[in-house]
Amino acid sequence: MKADEDKEVKVKITKRITDFSRWYLDVIAAADLADYAPVKGCMVIKPYGFSIWENIKKVLDKMFKATGHKNAYFPMFIPESFLKREAEHVEGFSPELAVVTHAGGKKLEENLVVRPTSETIIYSSFAKWIQSWRDLPLLINQWCNVVRWEMRPRLFLRTTEFLWQEGHTAHATHEEAQAEVKSMLEIYRDFVENYLAIPVVVGKKSGSAKFAGALETSTIEGLMQDKKALQCGTSHDLGQNFAKVFGVKFLDKAGSEQYVWQTSWGMSTRLIGALIMVHGDDKGIIMPPRIAPTCLAIIPIWKNDEEKAKTIEAANSLAQTIFDFPFVIDDRDLRPAWRYYEWERKGVPLRVEVGPRDVENNQVVLVRRDTGEKITISQDDFATRITEILEAIQHNLYDRAKQFCKENTHDVENWDDFKKIIDQQGGFIRAEWCGLAECEAEIKEATKATIRCIPFEDQGKRGICAHCGKPAQHRVYFAQSY
Amino acid sequence: MKADEDKEVKVKITKRITDFSRWYLDVIAAADLADYAPVKGCMVIKPYGFSIWENIKKVLDKMFKATGHKNAYFPMFIPESFLKREAEHVEGFSPELAVVTHAGGKKLEENLVVRPTSETIIYSSFAKWIQSWRDLPLLINQWCNVVRWEMRPRLFLRTTEFLWQEGHTAHATHEEAQAEVKSMLEIYRDFVENYLAIPVVVGKKSGSAKFAGALETSTIEGLMQDKKALQCGTSHDLGQNFAKVFGVKFLDKAGSEQYVWQTSWGMSTRLIGALIMVHGDDKGIIMPPRIAPTCLAIIPIWKNDEEKAKTIEAANSLAQTIFDFPFVIDDRDLRPAWRYYEWERKGVPLRVEVGPRDVENNQVVLVRRDTGEKITISQDDFATRITEILEAIQHNLYDRAKQFCKENTHDVENWDDFKKIIDQQGGFIRAEWCGLAECEAEIKEATKATIRCIPFEDQGKRGICAHCGKPAQHRVYFAQSY
Repeated sequence: MKADEDKEVKVKITKRITDFSRWYLDVIAAADLADYAPVKGCMVIKPYGFSIWENIKKVLDKMFKATGHKNAYFPMFIPESFLKREAEHVEGFSPELAVVTHAGGKKLEENLVVRPTSETIIYSSFAKWIQSWRDLPLLINQWCNVVRWEMRPRLFLRTTEFLWQEGHTAHATHEEAQAEVKSMLEIYRDFVENYLAIPVVVGKKSGSAKFAGALETSTIEGLMQDKKALQCGTSHDLGQNFAKVFGVKFLDKAGSEQYVWQTSWGMSTRLIGALIMVHGDDKGIIMPPRIAPTCLAIIPIWKNDEEKAKTIEAANSLAQTIFDFPFVIDDRDLRPAWRYYEWERKGVPLRVEVGPRDVENNQVVLVRRDTGEKITISQDDFATRITEILEAIQHNLYDRAKQFCKENTHDVENWDDFKKIIDQQGGFIRAEWCGLAECEAEIKEATKATIRCIPFEDQGKRGICAHCGKPAQHRVYFAQSY
Repeated sequence: MKADEDKEVKVKITKRITDFSRWYLDVIAAADLADYAPVKGCMVIKPYGFSIWENIKKVLDKMFKATGHKNAYFPMFIPESFLKREAEHVEGFSPELAVVTHAGGKKLEENLVVRPTSETIIYSSFAKWIQSWRDLPLLINQWCNVVRWEMRPRLFLRTTEFLWQEGHTAHATHEEAQAEVKSMLEIYRDFVENYLAIPVVVGKKSGSAKFAGALETSTIEGLMQDKKALQCGTSHDLGQNFAKVFGVKFLDKAGSEQYVWQTSWGMSTRLIGALIMVHGDDKGIIMPPRIAPTCLAIIPIWKNDEEKAKTIEAANSLAQTIFDFPFVIDDRDLRPAWRYYEWERKGVPLRVEVGPRDVENNQVVLVRRDTGEKITISQDDFATRITEILEAIQHNLYDRAKQFCKENTHDVENWDDFKKIIDQQGGFIRAEWCGLAECEAEIKEATKATIRCIPFEDQGKRGICAHCGKPAQHRVYFAQSY
């Protein structure tokens, strides 16, 4: 008897090719990751979705601490006047603010803004914490929720409230601050490529896309399966802009007063959206082993009570040889296929099938989530083989995403090709650009494509701008994006 | 030359006996734990203070997960109408709410409340998640920030915004829910007594002090060195109050529709305030080893470069034998005494002094933060001895707090003694109580003491109420409190 057969509900997932947006929402529901909340634009992150975020946090937090950063916590409420001190900053964030006007039963004397980002409130503390060059560099990180009012919400990608980390540092020189900007971007690239298995292009944002209040913004950009780009993390050179308005000063070694040089950098729950859109397929999401909440779903298969006892026992002894990977033994009274589907939807990288004949033959069947490949192995080799295969899955996910990115990156030399390729193929367009904001705006107007980044590495000789024909300043990445 | 001598600033700490409140703020500043923020009632948790919270989170999170609870994340904004659905709940929290009235540049159609606690927003999700008895029990926890507008803020103890965890569970029967309430209170007691080394009394709250919307609230209460009580954690039996207003229903095994039985439970950054007030002394805070961000401060001592090289080398080799405890090697160019003071203020449980003569004699000097005792040991015994001594410190901190609590718990049989003892001695008063809210209110009015808890364990025979003389219902703990 299958006691839980009423739980065997067929979950319908739209095909990616039919409607990518619908597919995205379907796999989020099918994998039980998140749901829209009754508050407009907000999401509920369900336990399985949240466990992915916990893994992201754990790895990143370790990387930040290993590079000398310390966590702290600053208030969520920012006095409106603080936000207004840096002109570009308030202009950039004003349209997205949620404002507390009443509290404790009274109208407030000064409105409080719910942090959209914390530069202003944190740097008012930095001004108190920093006195001398000995207090520098100051390397702080904060894990928290932020709010940016969202007109077109999309789970994980754009929600009114989201979770993130924001790093905030202060340095004695611009060179040191610039080195920090680069080194944090490199940590982001390392994490996104080597843990999330998402290849990225790295570079600077153009002036029109930089963070409001920064001198310069660096970014890592991934390419989703619908050939749109997604900004995965940014690292900002804030110069002395905030230091000057918040009076963050230090006495240098010579005893003279200087403003500090600052950086900030952040990544968010949006990364979960990237994981879904880069690796997912028509069966559900696919989790790279290094970040997967569950790496192995061990599924005993039986037809009668004797077989049930025997296969569950075998599953348990296999499990005892697993040290490095989170696993689940799914011995629920559901037909095997239904149990397979559930872990498939949730993207568990490796399924382990243990049937009665496998027990007899001292073997198990492994099924790779990324390729569907079935591999029969001896139980004696279990620990070694799963380690190898999970590593192979990690690399395969990266390699095929990299291949996809390569195939969908087009070098374009003139405006006709630019329009045609954006229109018919999408993906990254690498083209020469004159460096002028007006030209960039015209390109966006005509194609919805924006400059995703100006690569740090020189992309070859300068010719003429693919759009306006003026002398080119950079060879840059364009794409439509989220 | 002592290059950093200008950092050797004498930190002044008011004595506890002179002014406990002032002492509390002084040690928070001296240990660099937190600071008031520019937003009224809010605090900035500085890196060292936050690292204590990180340790608290790590241990508790493991305990919650080991008992089957899963983390999730729900929106911080709650529609005002949600809060109003449970009458007692909204009445209890209304005076403390912060309200978002404008967002995205417009007045909102419905005001949003910043969560003071999340029962209402979470249970609107539970109503969607739960269909059948198979979905129960549902065991969810959330780590987040909450806001309760605070008129008399006090760092860690009462701040407008604070960090906490809130557990929310749903069960098929009242018995199961009641068992959950007890088992989470027991986890809290275990954690607070065995990690924070704070002895507590456990029991029920009286009707006037229970959580707004609960059937019953259980609590753990500690006694601070100023002989005031502090509520350290609470666990609520919510009955079906919220289930009924949010429609959280399930089909039972017989196929009939039932409302779930719910619990919620929470602990917060207030625990850091408890740590300070229970263990701290006139030199600073004292951290119990099991929760200390740094267990050992290893301090090389030298008079010349040769000695410096030798003692730092010895410190480094000692450090390599430490596996279980976080440590710091403080080899800054500051006089030893100034380095001692800093780690003393920060409550590091064990100081390790390594001077040139110690190196010669293959010994080190350990100094206990809790007793000041100096212990000279052979370097060969280092790993073993520090393990023993840190364990001894953990127990000593608990034992002396327990002794303090015992000495300051007074059994009182009549109203004259009650008033005299509260007035002259403070501490816990254990007395008979009639069970009437009016009587409890009169006692509070006259003495500022409230019922901290009605112990689960029977405290002996019933006589008459110590205040009004009517027949007693319970023997309860009274105290003035935070």
